[in-house]
Amino acid sequence: MKIACVLTNGFEDSEFRQPYDALRQAEHEVVIVGLEAGQKVDGYKGMEQGVTVEKAFDEVTPNEFDGLLIPGGYSPDRLRAHQAPVDFVRAFFDADKPVAAICHGPQLFLTAGTFRDHRMTAWKTIQDDLRLAGADVVDEEVVVDRNLVTSRQPQDIPAFIRETLQLLRVPSRA
Amino acid sequence: MKIACVLTNGFEDSEFRQPYDALRQAEHEVVIVGLEAGQKVDGYKGMEQGVTVEKAFDEVTPNEFDGLLIPGGYSPDRLRAHQAPVDFVRAFFDADKPVAAICHGPQLFLTAGTFRDHRMTAWKTIQDDLRLAGADVVDEEVVVDRNLVTSRQPQDIPAFIRETLQLLRVPSRA
Repeated sequence: MKIACVLTNGFEDSEFRQPYDALRQAEHEVVIVGLEAGQKVDGYKGMEQGVTVEKAFDEVTPNEFDGLLIPGGYSPDRLRAHQAPVDFVRAFFDADKPVAAICHGPQLFLTAGTFRDHRMTAWKTIQDDLRLAGADVVDEEVVVDRNLVTSRQPQDIPAFIRETLQLLRVPSRA
Repeated sequence: MKIACVLTNGFEDSEFRQPYDALRQAEHEVVIVGLEAGQKVDGYKGMEQGVTVEKAFDEVTPNEFDGLLIPGGYSPDRLRAHQAPVDFVRAFFDADKPVAAICHGPQLFLTAGTFRDHRMTAWKTIQDDLRLAGADVVDEEVVVDRNLVTSRQPQDIPAFIRETLQLLRVPSRA
């Protein structure tokens, strides 16, 4: 399957690297979509530097992708300051396509207004924001609700990867 | 007056430096309160590095301060992952003491539950979170509502400083 990984500066290093590598090892195609094609973006912990944005949001459409990966850190909050990433994320929910988001990833759901129809988890501070917005939030290492997989933090990455790969193996769950 | 400036790594450089300097130039005492006394913290833009945390939250009480300054960037979200900063912020609201927050600063109000009784502004993505939580949010360079001064972004700093200094000159507005 062809997966869009939305990414900009300030991402949490392992929350990008480990799911990205796991998806590719499972023979999915992963395209890094960001604010500017060719931009080099860095993780905020300094372990992942110079990751290349392959496509800008205005060069792709959600239709060409089968699923969406949203790493955490400060990347989601920076992305949601722009309209194109917000519209891009909303399109995956509208089409019931697989979405996997970890840590601060669900901040994009708040701005896109796509937090209402799925049970989810997130980084603990974002759990607060989601609950205040009326979302159905639980504090668990991974939550799968139909086409949505969410996790809280780097320690949850193995469970996050396991359930994301499972969702992509069984698209009829979506 | 004695002002607590709550700060940790990832703050927005100018949103700390300029209000901090302006308060001191106006002969207010400003104490940098953070997660660990003696810690050196950095702005995420690299212009302010090695700012020393003077007091940890467990070494101070809100009672010893006359007001609160919350710079933006990623510092507020990191602080609100801990209970002590959240309780510290809430105490200033409970006592109707002056609070000045810019950019991501109001993220602390979401977790502290102190966003309901004042009109405010914030960085545009945090405006989304505040609106979804039911706060009274406007998109203006500075909003003063009784003891609370809020602004959106670095460009608003002159207005933010002007209204914060005015609030501290006229504590009866609180």
